Amino acid sequence: MRIIIVGGVAGGMSAAARLRRLNETAEIIILEKGNYVSFANCGLPYYLGGEISDKAQLVVKTPAELQRRFNLDIRLNHEVVGLDPAVQEVTVKSAQETKKMHYDRLLLAPGAHPIVPRFSGVDLTHSQFTLRGIPDLEKIMTNLQQPAIKKIAVIGGGAIGLEITEALLKQKYQVALLEAQSQLLTPFDPEMSVLLAQELEKHGVKLHLNAKVAAIQPDNDLILADQTQVAADAIIFALGVRPDTACFTAAGLKSAKDGSLLVDENYQTSVPNVYAVGDAILTTNQLTGKLQPFRLASPANRQGRQAADAMLGYKRKNRGNIGTSIVRIFGLGAAQTGLNEKQLHQLKRPFNCLHLRGSSHVAYFPGAQPLSLKLLFEPDTGKILGAQAVGNGGENAARRIDILATAIKAGMTVNDLPELELSYSPPFGAAKDPVNLAGYAAQNLLEGLSENIQWHELSKYQKAGAYLIDVREPQEIITNGAYPQAHNIPVDQLRERLNELPADKLLITACQSGQRSYLAERILRNHGFRVKNLDGGWLTYQAGTKAVFPITDKL
Amino acid sequence: MRIIIVGGVAGGMSAAARLRRLNETAEIIILEKGNYVSFANCGLPYYLGGEISDKAQLVVKTPAELQRRFNLDIRLNHEVVGLDPAVQEVTVKSAQETKKMHYDRLLLAPGAHPIVPRFSGVDLTHSQFTLRGIPDLEKIMTNLQQPAIKKIAVIGGGAIGLEITEALLKQKYQVALLEAQSQLLTPFDPEMSVLLAQELEKHGVKLHLNAKVAAIQPDNDLILADQTQVAADAIIFALGVRPDTACFTAAGLKSAKDGSLLVDENYQTSVPNVYAVGDAILTTNQLTGKLQPFRLASPANRQGRQAADAMLGYKRKNRGNIGTSIVRIFGLGAAQTGLNEKQLHQLKRPFNCLHLRGSSHVAYFPGAQPLSLKLLFEPDTGKILGAQAVGNGGENAARRIDILATAIKAGMTVNDLPELELSYSPPFGAAKDPVNLAGYAAQNLLEGLSENIQWHELSKYQKAGAYLIDVREPQEIITNGAYPQAHNIPVDQLRERLNELPADKLLITACQSGQRSYLAERILRNHGFRVKNLDGGWLTYQAGTKAVFPITDKL
Repeated sequence: MRIIIVGGVAGGMSAAARLRRLNETAEIIILEKGNYVSFANCGLPYYLGGEISDKAQLVVKTPAELQRRFNLDIRLNHEVVGLDPAVQEVTVKSAQETKKMHYDRLLLAPGAHPIVPRFSGVDLTHSQFTLRGIPDLEKIMTNLQQPAIKKIAVIGGGAIGLEITEALLKQKYQVALLEAQSQLLTPFDPEMSVLLAQELEKHGVKLHLNAKVAAIQPDNDLILADQTQVAADAIIFALGVRPDTACFTAAGLKSAKDGSLLVDENYQTSVPNVYAVGDAILTTNQLTGKLQPFRLASPANRQGRQAADAMLGYKRKNRGNIGTSIVRIFGLGAAQTGLNEKQLHQLKRPFNCLHLRGSSHVAYFPGAQPLSLKLLFEPDTGKILGAQAVGNGGENAARRIDILATAIKAGMTVNDLPELELSYSPPFGAAKDPVNLAGYAAQNLLEGLSENIQWHELSKYQKAGAYLIDVREPQEIITNGAYPQAHNIPVDQLRERLNELPADKLLITACQSGQRSYLAERILRNHGFRVKNLDGGWLTYQAGTKAVFPITDKL
Repeated sequence: MRIIIVGGVAGGMSAAARLRRLNETAEIIILEKGNYVSFANCGLPYYLGGEISDKAQLVVKTPAELQRRFNLDIRLNHEVVGLDPAVQEVTVKSAQETKKMHYDRLLLAPGAHPIVPRFSGVDLTHSQFTLRGIPDLEKIMTNLQQPAIKKIAVIGGGAIGLEITEALLKQKYQVALLEAQSQLLTPFDPEMSVLLAQELEKHGVKLHLNAKVAAIQPDNDLILADQTQVAADAIIFALGVRPDTACFTAAGLKSAKDGSLLVDENYQTSVPNVYAVGDAILTTNQLTGKLQPFRLASPANRQGRQAADAMLGYKRKNRGNIGTSIVRIFGLGAAQTGLNEKQLHQLKRPFNCLHLRGSSHVAYFPGAQPLSLKLLFEPDTGKILGAQAVGNGGENAARRIDILATAIKAGMTVNDLPELELSYSPPFGAAKDPVNLAGYAAQNLLEGLSENIQWHELSKYQKAGAYLIDVREPQEIITNGAYPQAHNIPVDQLRERLNELPADKLLITACQSGQRSYLAERILRNHGFRVKNLDGGWLTYQAGTKAVFPITDKL
């Protein structure tokens, strides 16, 4: 049996190794159009930034090692340019020849290529770049070393754009980061992603949000739609990717509009004996039931292995994805899983939402790293829908998002979160982990013990006559900043000062993080007032209002 | 309504705060026999070791702060010495008086006191100590400062004993650690806990396992049952705890043999209006269905809050525990959840088991910290039963055990582990996290693609005629050590050297971590040999055989 695999990176190489472990006799041929297989594409920005100092580290396994260990036939610089499913042949182009090859099973793991925009002035020859593989990286690093290159524009504020921006700042370039939308990192909600924007600005980046590029000048300066001019000596495009599937869709394989291949739950494409995995396919979002791309390393690797099983008759079902990611920018890490508030608004799906300020471990043990956590869940069932965390260092965010990603995969509700027994001793956690606390807070919302409003709803409520009570200490307000039109009563004085409050108005309690204001809400409710709590307190309100102008009641 | 809470630390104070948030008018009285409430008992060893430098940090909230914020009546140095459930009264002893107090609801959160052994020569007056609260710590620190005190014996190799040992080593004492059993840290299996034993020995501890103390000499030197003499100037007993429930069991509350109070699923004791939480109660082990103590901070805090709800009529069910813990010893952290191999043997419960060597994040990114992971699961259903991890730094272990503890709580099987979508970018993880990889490996065992044997079974198999193949490179064997009676064929030469292998014997493949030997197993199985893989490779075999002498086929 001859198995041909197109593409030798994440999905393709996972499949090849698994196929060999299952079957010693199959002929396994990997056709890779580039000159590397099994390289660390996620590591490229860190080599650019100097954190990975040896390029050899980016090559996880050499073709010679892989061939020997797994008895594979790895052919570099072999591009598949055609497919004829009727006769089970691919057309392969190499430096020497173009020829047809028969397959018994074909696995397509071609990945995706960076989007090149259609702005006038785009010219990828020597000072404008995209980044996909090691050769792109070499080209970038060689060209940027020219002394004339001081200012670099990065276009695209997704994870790759941010990682490249960080890398260039570490290499002492002046960097402008341009994003067409109103926030960076769309998997996050604005009040969370703004923390990374601030971290980048702290390190000197010039950030342009809502920046529509109109044209690129011959000297690489950018003209934006609003006529702003952004000076640049070089440009890196990080505008996302499109699946590298042109010759397969041309051969009749069913695909989505963007070229993503459609596969069944066993990774088979619309034609027999042809399978596909990785950045080139769509999978089901387990939280919406809808097909979408999840162009992440982890699903690609899993899919490669599962497709290998499926190709050899083992039952493997692609269960779909929820999407989990993390990005590190200097001292912060931001992780997310599942759906965010913007998506839930767009889906018109009811949800509850809460923000919580936590820490990597108990405050009394040295080195505790602050953490901002956001949790989204169904208001009726409590089913967890998504979570986001931004933490100093980032490991604290990774850990909580991993717990919540596991909880989402298990179909847990917020009622299960207080029950989680997590690793605690003072250097590593707290008796009530932020995840447990988020569960308690969510339970309070579900059971009607508390009602919250979001940072972007405050002005709406105030306009409608709600009365805002800031329960922080006066000194905190001076230090951190004041809410508009707030009446200050520190929480510890509240019981004695109830007579200052209007009995006929909706009260909104607010503090620094949302914890004392929750206690204030409870005190006031127990005294018969109508009250809502400003979720996440000043920290969230301030982050959100910095992120979004003007504030509306919808994100 | 008057609610009396006995004990003002974890469970008691969690209950008090929650009670007040639910009810503004109840009289809430906390009777604490010590002179602190809400102190960080888990932090005591770190103050002893100097990592926490300010004692005030150990007091999470002062009584004045708590009284003001939650309108509580906190009475320090008030010991409850009697209970009359028929008339709903407790007898309370203070410096001033002994009096009876009526309650409408009573919550017992008395905690547990350290066990004082019955060795001859025990004398807690000035150079032998137990550690429960801040006054104990002050006494220890004052007395140990005497210049004559250089050698300290710690008796008891559980988590507290180890944390105290580490603290004393950091303070430059010579420390002997004595444990009656054959290993430290019984929640772990020996091949895992031995890593911490080695870490302690590296830092100079004199470790005595299987050490039964027969007597203590007047100068604090210890005489063991085997006549060994252990020199000591002072002794700290860390032999575990017993619930502080004597006056409640005397009042007729149902209890277990050790004095732990028996409660129903709403935390009510055997008498009406009396509830109990924390170290003083038993809860159901969710993996065995049996009652047992889980004397950990996290359950105590949760129970306090849930009991508060239950006392006021909110439905809260104590679902039980699985038990998750972590301990840090110098550069290592060891975390565990659920059942271990020894427990499963004792329960005569069938299980599969695997060991895996992983890393905090991808090896090509700087700072990757090694991690040893052990997974236990049901052989028929794949249900996850337990996990243990020891990692450099420890945060890597905490994160994976938290994921697996969540998976166990959700009733997940090993088939769910590859599906988990965990936070990955190079600084934070891997496209296939160790948890995913453990799932794949377990799936291979479940599906019969692989069969493993444990480190403690190798000699049994070899005696029965099995043929051991070490597939490491010769240089690795020289560097790391050789298996007994192994035939060396590096994995990359295996396909060409099949003729060296006996066709009629059971083959056992082995390598450094168990990964290459799994590939070798697959190659050989695909060529028709009968093969088993030595789980966890040399790293696990070496750790296990160092931990246990003589090796038997059962732990």
